[in-house]
Amino acid sequence: MPPPAVPAYRRLSVEERRSQLLDSALTLFAHRAPEDVSLDDVAEAAGVSRPLVYRYFPGGKQQLYEAALRSAAEELRHCFDEPHDGPLLTRLGRALDRYLGFVDEHATGFSALLQGGSVVETSRTTAIVDGVRRAAADHIYSHLGVTDPGPRLRMTVRMWITAVEASSLIWLDEEKQPPSGELRDWLVEQFVAVLTVTAGRDPQTAALLAAFTPGT
Amino acid sequence: MPPPAVPAYRRLSVEERRSQLLDSALTLFAHRAPEDVSLDDVAEAAGVSRPLVYRYFPGGKQQLYEAALRSAAEELRHCFDEPHDGPLLTRLGRALDRYLGFVDEHATGFSALLQGGSVVETSRTTAIVDGVRRAAADHIYSHLGVTDPGPRLRMTVRMWITAVEASSLIWLDEEKQPPSGELRDWLVEQFVAVLTVTAGRDPQTAALLAAFTPGT
Repeated sequence: MPPPAVPAYRRLSVEERRSQLLDSALTLFAHRAPEDVSLDDVAEAAGVSRPLVYRYFPGGKQQLYEAALRSAAEELRHCFDEPHDGPLLTRLGRALDRYLGFVDEHATGFSALLQGGSVVETSRTTAIVDGVRRAAADHIYSHLGVTDPGPRLRMTVRMWITAVEASSLIWLDEEKQPPSGELRDWLVEQFVAVLTVTAGRDPQTAALLAAFTPGT
Repeated sequence: MPPPAVPAYRRLSVEERRSQLLDSALTLFAHRAPEDVSLDDVAEAAGVSRPLVYRYFPGGKQQLYEAALRSAAEELRHCFDEPHDGPLLTRLGRALDRYLGFVDEHATGFSALLQGGSVVETSRTTAIVDGVRRAAADHIYSHLGVTDPGPRLRMTVRMWITAVEASSLIWLDEEKQPPSGELRDWLVEQFVAVLTVTAGRDPQTAALLAAFTPGT
């Protein structure tokens, strides 16, 4: 007997169910501050019973939020995956495009998390976000071909990453103006500009700058 | 009869006492994370009885922390007070010198606050910190002689302010290297560099840049 075309219920594995609940949670977090999303809301959005959500997240809202954040952090790390060929600034531009797409999709949750002061923010959530920042910096060093970045290069890269975060928060505040393509180009130009300033004080950075000549 | 040369106890006014307790608290916060400072510690540091500290801060540790933060925010705003004459970049450098002095003095408390995830962080403490950021931006516009900064100029200034914060956290992490004078010069150069990038896209910023020619 063939299965019905649209089964009313499909039995999900534990991992599939967990992932479905996290997707529902992330969709809610994209439009509401974390403290305004309850486990009941997640049950409703996922079309499942409340006891089921509580079974997966017995630690309640905080556990749900941290799990959703880990899942979003994983997604964000994938934005940085970029093949090591072609012009360096083109690669950076593509990673920024994916990053801005992520920011666009997760708008409210992203702002709430980075703006701080949320009741769901803990030293654990801060550590997750810092891990993503470190991953972003490591990708940059890897594309630059630097295995041992010195303190001045590291400070410059970390400052630029922070500035990118700040710009994306402002971008969300300003109804996503300028258009993301313009913001991306602007951020790439700022990356070159701040490295150029550092190159005046740091031989390692000066040596790297040659790789930034357009077309290389 | 003349008063004793060194009175064992002097009766402080309510305001003086409050200010003395906040000074003691800020000294403790400079070396320990906010969650590791108790009202008992403040009593001991200020050399007063525990009930007296509890009388001034009946809301406990959270109230003490917010009051200390407000007091530190006030002090930080004073760092930005700079006469409107002389070369613009020299003024910026002097404000940065005072800012880095503040960071140096309040090291641990400053890091804990800006790194987030602290148990004492709330939407109120975030609002206090954001108020200081806005004040910093307003001072910059005022020195630039801009009364109506457009979105691109505003985004650039806010990004640079965030980058300055990031650099000061890294500076504390890296045992205050490079020396503060070098960090100050580097930040001033970065300010000019990011404005120069924005000037390529924004006529308002392009018009301002003339004012940055050294010696003006």
